Amino acid sequence: MAFVGIRSGLRWRVLKLSPPALLASFYLVLVVLGGVFLHLPFANTGGLTVMDTLFTSMSAVTVTGLTVVDTGGDYTLAGQAGILVLMQLGGLGLVTFAVFVLASLGVQLGLGQRLILREDLNQSSFGDLMQLVKTVFVVALGCEAVGAILLAIVFVPDHGWGPGLWAAVFHAVSAFNNAGFSLWSESLVDYATDPVVNIVVPMLFIIGGLGFVVLNDIRRKRSWRRFTLHSKIMLVMSLVLIFYGWATFAILEWTNPGTLGAYDDAVSRLVVSWFQAVTPRTAGFNTIDTGEIRDSTALMTMTLMLVGAGSTSTAGGIKVTTFAVLILATLAFFRRESELHLFRRSLGVDEVMKVLALTVVSMLIVLSAIFFVSITHDGSFLSLAFEICSAFGTVGLTMGATPELDTFGRLVVMTVMFLGRVGPLTLGFFIATHSAARVRYPPGRIFLG
Amino acid sequence: MAFVGIRSGLRWRVLKLSPPALLASFYLVLVVLGGVFLHLPFANTGGLTVMDTLFTSMSAVTVTGLTVVDTGGDYTLAGQAGILVLMQLGGLGLVTFAVFVLASLGVQLGLGQRLILREDLNQSSFGDLMQLVKTVFVVALGCEAVGAILLAIVFVPDHGWGPGLWAAVFHAVSAFNNAGFSLWSESLVDYATDPVVNIVVPMLFIIGGLGFVVLNDIRRKRSWRRFTLHSKIMLVMSLVLIFYGWATFAILEWTNPGTLGAYDDAVSRLVVSWFQAVTPRTAGFNTIDTGEIRDSTALMTMTLMLVGAGSTSTAGGIKVTTFAVLILATLAFFRRESELHLFRRSLGVDEVMKVLALTVVSMLIVLSAIFFVSITHDGSFLSLAFEICSAFGTVGLTMGATPELDTFGRLVVMTVMFLGRVGPLTLGFFIATHSAARVRYPPGRIFLG
Ligand SMILES: [K+]
Ligand SMILES: [K+]
Repeated sequence: MAFVGIRSGLRWRVLKLSPPALLASFYLVLVVLGGVFLHLPFANTGGLTVMDTLFTSMSAVTVTGLTVVDTGGDYTLAGQAGILVLMQLGGLGLVTFAVFVLASLGVQLGLGQRLILREDLNQSSFGDLMQLVKTVFVVALGCEAVGAILLAIVFVPDHGWGPGLWAAVFHAVSAFNNAGFSLWSESLVDYATDPVVNIVVPMLFIIGGLGFVVLNDIRRKRSWRRFTLHSKIMLVMSLVLIFYGWATFAILEWTNPGTLGAYDDAVSRLVVSWFQAVTPRTAGFNTIDTGEIRDSTALMTMTLMLVGAGSTSTAGGIKVTTFAVLILATLAFFRRESELHLFRRSLGVDEVMKVLALTVVSMLIVLSAIFFVSITHDGSFLSLAFEICSAFGTVGLTMGATPELDTFGRLVVMTVMFLGRVGPLTLGFFIATHSAARVRYPPGRIFLG
Repeated sequence: MAFVGIRSGLRWRVLKLSPPALLASFYLVLVVLGGVFLHLPFANTGGLTVMDTLFTSMSAVTVTGLTVVDTGGDYTLAGQAGILVLMQLGGLGLVTFAVFVLASLGVQLGLGQRLILREDLNQSSFGDLMQLVKTVFVVALGCEAVGAILLAIVFVPDHGWGPGLWAAVFHAVSAFNNAGFSLWSESLVDYATDPVVNIVVPMLFIIGGLGFVVLNDIRRKRSWRRFTLHSKIMLVMSLVLIFYGWATFAILEWTNPGTLGAYDDAVSRLVVSWFQAVTPRTAGFNTIDTGEIRDSTALMTMTLMLVGAGSTSTAGGIKVTTFAVLILATLAFFRRESELHLFRRSLGVDEVMKVLALTVVSMLIVLSAIFFVSITHDGSFLSLAFEICSAFGTVGLTMGATPELDTFGRLVVMTVMFLGRVGPLTLGFFIATHSAARVRYPPGRIFLG
């Protein structure tokens, strides 16, 4: 990237790709580099195909956490460290990382790079960017360090000093970046009722999923009244979604012997429900066997996965704010109001159009992917649909179908993870023409509904 | 209704319900009357519960065609005639019918009734209403008569004069109103490759599904250039959806021994594909066992069912024009155009807001219904989701789950059929407050996607 500004011919050609296309290209390059690294003999314990390691790399870079091999068993310590680096780069945004490195090296940032960063973090104002990058790193590394220390208290006694500490660091980084990768094939099932794990891990992924704009607000303004509209929506809606998921999961699964029914006391069942309610919004860890949940619970989880968490966070999906505007716009229409408003701020037509476009593209991606996977795969339709929603929300929860997929199915899931992370909007800019027709037409009338 | 204008106190209270609520109430009354009639001893062959006959009545009035009993076996000729009347009233619009009767009796129509009619046909201009009502009846009865005569040519030799003629009339009325009721438990499977049935029945339900606004245009303007924007969109999109469904069904099912694979020659397979491609848009007849289709075909069929056919037609679903505006708005956004246009006409922000609200409400209804049915029913998730989409699109295709539903599940399906027919917009007006806040707020900024 530092070379982009040097030769204007090259620069012109690179910029011609448009910032979203550049960003997508960088993510792809990182995926391929990660796949190659994980395929090196010292990175895995043998027997992995190129498809296996590429899938792992894509899953790590997009912070999804869907796996086709056993992260703890099939990768060596070096391979696991590679996955950790890929999660961190993918989660914090490769570009944020690059800008930070370049800035710390004293390289002057041109407009080209700034545009890329802007697309990645969805930031509108250049002025706040460097402040945001600083917040990103302070918060991320701080949270991960504190999380790792707390998790070590639980993991070291069970696994010994070396493996316990490594597990603590790995799971802390995986949690904050909402990557969902675990060193254990059953994810965190062994710690389903452990109080530390049930507080530390969700805290890490909830904070990571709020988005750095919200964290920046909280860190600098420290007062609800002065928060931006975006932060207010994010915080309120996150609470609503968490309690909705918690109550619904508990009610639906209370007597299911495969999940909550396995625990005798109500407190354990509520603790386990808490974890399963917060993880679908993009984290992807599980403390029960997700394959055992009821169909209705799976559907509820799928909707949470599609909504995802916050913009400018490690989340995929359509994002909480998009979901909020969808609901608000609908309510406003039925109230015959001409503008949306909440928290004493109004939202314009442009926002609504953006939300509509984003939602339509997202639904097209998800439905097409389920369609293509169901053509070539004979498994349960629900579990296939579940994996695709999980991939699009970069969640990583699985009902068991992903490891069974053939090469075509894996390519579909990889594509969906990539699109879920790089963003439907970026994809839209990518594929669409940018020319605007200047002809104006008289209004037409059609009947709807 | 003729009494509405007589006592102003009553009128005030009735109108206070708002036109959509009045319309919904009338539909509900018709459903209950139909259910009571079908429960009378001479209408059925015995053994039917109140729930069975109410379900049949709801299915007939909403022109859905989902059944929990055998229409040909469990209802007498009188019961079948009752179903035919319910389909005709429900399909042409109870209110259109009432207005026509009142007008023919010389009763002066007040604004109250006109408003109801307007909501039912989604017509914006009062001036065209009586013309439209006339077209409705000329086209409907004309098509049904011609269709019955043509179908009789096929059905009479197979079933004898009496039953053959009755079957021809019943299926012609059922087809034109897109009701999907058949006197035979296997629907039209026996006529899967019959050329007359494969032309007459689809012609009837395609014409019925275009909507009377389009038919009125075709009848009066007879020139593409002079058609309204609405008609142009409907005709083009209908063709696109038909060919999309035809090609996709043929490709996906070509070698499936449960469906197309049962036919040796390519022509038969194409004919059967044709019928299965046109029926999901709201008709509901089938010439194969829908329970045997592949998962991918089921998903494709579900999307066609959710889209439905035309406004001011016998269709349910979100409607073709709504779907078209969703796609156009998305394309316009990604092209960075500030207004939608096609066929040299523009569409305003109001239309887009209406489409967004309608789509969100529809998706909420469908997802909630699938959720509630999946809580209480242990069957295949896909087939449950299929029935709900079929009910919302008032289609009537079934993968077999509906007859297995318990009372709660049947109530959910009945509610979805009702909402699918009366219209998500009507529902929205129904439940929402109508007050508009007059306070204006400064614009806020949030991050999406
Ligand atoms: K994840
Ligand atoms: K139907």
